[in-house]
Amino acid sequence: MTIIDNRRVALSRRGQRMPASPIRKLMPLADAAKARGIRVYHLNIGQPDIETPACMLDRLKQIDDRVLAYSPSSGTPAFLQSLRSYYEHRLGLSLEIDQILATTGGSEAILFAFMACANEGDDILVVEPFYANYLSFAAMAGVNVVPVTSRGREGFHLPERAIWERTVTPRTRLVILCNPSNPTGTVYRRDELEMVVDFCREHGLFLISDEVYREFVYDGRKAISALELAGAEELVVVVDSLSKRYSACGIRLGALVTRNAEVYDACLRMAQGRLSPPGLAQFIAVGAESLGEEYTRQIVSEYQRRRDVLYEGLTSIPGVFLEKPEGAFYCVVRLPIDDAERFAAWMLSDFEHEGETVLVAPARGFYASPLGGNEIRIAYVLKEEDLRRSVELIRIALKQYKEG
Amino acid sequence: MTIIDNRRVALSRRGQRMPASPIRKLMPLADAAKARGIRVYHLNIGQPDIETPACMLDRLKQIDDRVLAYSPSSGTPAFLQSLRSYYEHRLGLSLEIDQILATTGGSEAILFAFMACANEGDDILVVEPFYANYLSFAAMAGVNVVPVTSRGREGFHLPERAIWERTVTPRTRLVILCNPSNPTGTVYRRDELEMVVDFCREHGLFLISDEVYREFVYDGRKAISALELAGAEELVVVVDSLSKRYSACGIRLGALVTRNAEVYDACLRMAQGRLSPPGLAQFIAVGAESLGEEYTRQIVSEYQRRRDVLYEGLTSIPGVFLEKPEGAFYCVVRLPIDDAERFAAWMLSDFEHEGETVLVAPARGFYASPLGGNEIRIAYVLKEEDLRRSVELIRIALKQYKEG
Repeated sequence: MTIIDNRRVALSRRGQRMPASPIRKLMPLADAAKARGIRVYHLNIGQPDIETPACMLDRLKQIDDRVLAYSPSSGTPAFLQSLRSYYEHRLGLSLEIDQILATTGGSEAILFAFMACANEGDDILVVEPFYANYLSFAAMAGVNVVPVTSRGREGFHLPERAIWERTVTPRTRLVILCNPSNPTGTVYRRDELEMVVDFCREHGLFLISDEVYREFVYDGRKAISALELAGAEELVVVVDSLSKRYSACGIRLGALVTRNAEVYDACLRMAQGRLSPPGLAQFIAVGAESLGEEYTRQIVSEYQRRRDVLYEGLTSIPGVFLEKPEGAFYCVVRLPIDDAERFAAWMLSDFEHEGETVLVAPARGFYASPLGGNEIRIAYVLKEEDLRRSVELIRIALKQYKEG
Repeated sequence: MTIIDNRRVALSRRGQRMPASPIRKLMPLADAAKARGIRVYHLNIGQPDIETPACMLDRLKQIDDRVLAYSPSSGTPAFLQSLRSYYEHRLGLSLEIDQILATTGGSEAILFAFMACANEGDDILVVEPFYANYLSFAAMAGVNVVPVTSRGREGFHLPERAIWERTVTPRTRLVILCNPSNPTGTVYRRDELEMVVDFCREHGLFLISDEVYREFVYDGRKAISALELAGAEELVVVVDSLSKRYSACGIRLGALVTRNAEVYDACLRMAQGRLSPPGLAQFIAVGAESLGEEYTRQIVSEYQRRRDVLYEGLTSIPGVFLEKPEGAFYCVVRLPIDDAERFAAWMLSDFEHEGETVLVAPARGFYASPLGGNEIRIAYVLKEEDLRRSVELIRIALKQYKEG
């Protein structure tokens, strides 16, 4: 008897390539530790514990629609006006309504920007270490990630122009950076950003500026939006999000902002494809633009205290190195060991101190180059006492690990 | 003085290719008509006027989270359990939690499915006329849409196997169909679906079954889910959505359902990239699975009455042709004119009767072949009296148009 096999369906290559999240990679080990009764401090994920503003939570009770209907693809007029007012009053930037596209989180804005600015097979320059999910969107968009490496010993500030010039090729279409930076906490200076704009102008590249942490800057710094930079009007696509600004990560609401009408129009057509951004989120976000500087100041000083606790604690551990983070609520920390991923896994599987341990993200997944093997990324969204305790656990773990 | 021009940034080819929505194309003309004081009946868009269920609206008032935090990338456990229970009790389908991925509307499920099942440059077979936004997701995924044409005179049922065999190539990776169909209202019979499954098995193709209208079937029909079909476990990816089932289009919540573990896993990694599906939507959706058959029956009989009004009205207009729609709340109607788009635009710009006119979607944009030029798509989501009036306006408009 002859059995004729049917052809088997095969997952696409990009489906195979799609990276797993390095931030969530060790979660199974953390879950197992918890199952053994161990308390695990989560330093791996940027989920703030700050309350969502009351004005947004109150709006939830005010929804009286009987039909939860589609909103316009670009966003509701009220939400777009809210964003426009935020840009005008908080950033001093005058924008038209058709330069702002409401998106499903900053995530969708990144995907739209990649797709509008680069073709399949094109190269994109990504300042590394980078927000690891850029790799996911790059895989979806079919573009090649080419790293431009920033160095911990320079506080992860941008490398000099010569490095950029050596990296660009005729296939390069865009530069993406995150300012203030997840994962490094670096806030780029005006001169650095102007250098990048000049570089992009010279080579005909778009500049995608992921500014979802722009409120989170310390020691009196001010984050510079790429929208402020002279001569960059046609180049710049800003990725924005309400997730961190208002501690509302779960509502999935963000925006793509650009003065390039062609890019806006292409992204609007993608937005029409998916019909609408989330409607309940847009409704509750209206009004948040009137939260004043005092709101931001309180949150920022809270995070600055947390940063100080973390920085002072970590730098007091022998062999641990980091420059003082300038913004966002992350830092990349060099450890006095070879394999930070093995150490991070070991902390969950083989270590505990007084029934507690720590979950950190190995930094390897935030690089496209073979770098970061001895680094971890820490999100300092925990309360000061928990951060202090976490640092202490890392200190003890490192000592045991090196001795074991 | 020599001015050295900088290179200009250029929109990507896919950004240029991205289609505008044929459903919203005539909106500017409709807006202009409204500005002239004309009442415009919207037959172009499938936004139901049915109220969102009270149990979902009530849940909005019950949200007492102080932090609107990220949910798991695959969806909250409660929402996934709700979907699982719906599939079990309403469809008799037993699914595991890791076969259901919560998505941002059915839209995201389609994009994920295309990307997991096909590579850039691959062909996908799409039963035409099709939901126009498949073109947007295909453009984003960089795949070529190859139409398999269904014909109005056959009630838009699937063409015979020989047609499929003539269309498939070594570059074909998947088939996508919508059942019940937007835009045709066709509900595929078991024998048609089994033919497609057999065809897919023979050629190693995935079958993406868009079932977001599965509740909307008339005259005692039952929609068959591709998940029920024998021998299709590895092939089938179902696109689901709460938008129409619960008249909750604006919350942007859907699901991708597959028993193919590789596809699920690739889509989960894409889902990790975008972090979470909308959280408020997931919260209010929990409990909707307990809405019984009575809930569906009432809505379906309401739509069936509307369908009857529309069908009887349209078929009484000389030269107008459609088979009786079997499901969903759309139909594709052949008009006794050459250029349905020009007619649709004319109804908005040059026609009114007693201060009223109608907005319909030209069907051309629902085809990849050069077909549908004399067809329109109608969504019958208006109340019976408004549908009656709309049909009357179309009758009068057609008469004037042909005489003028």
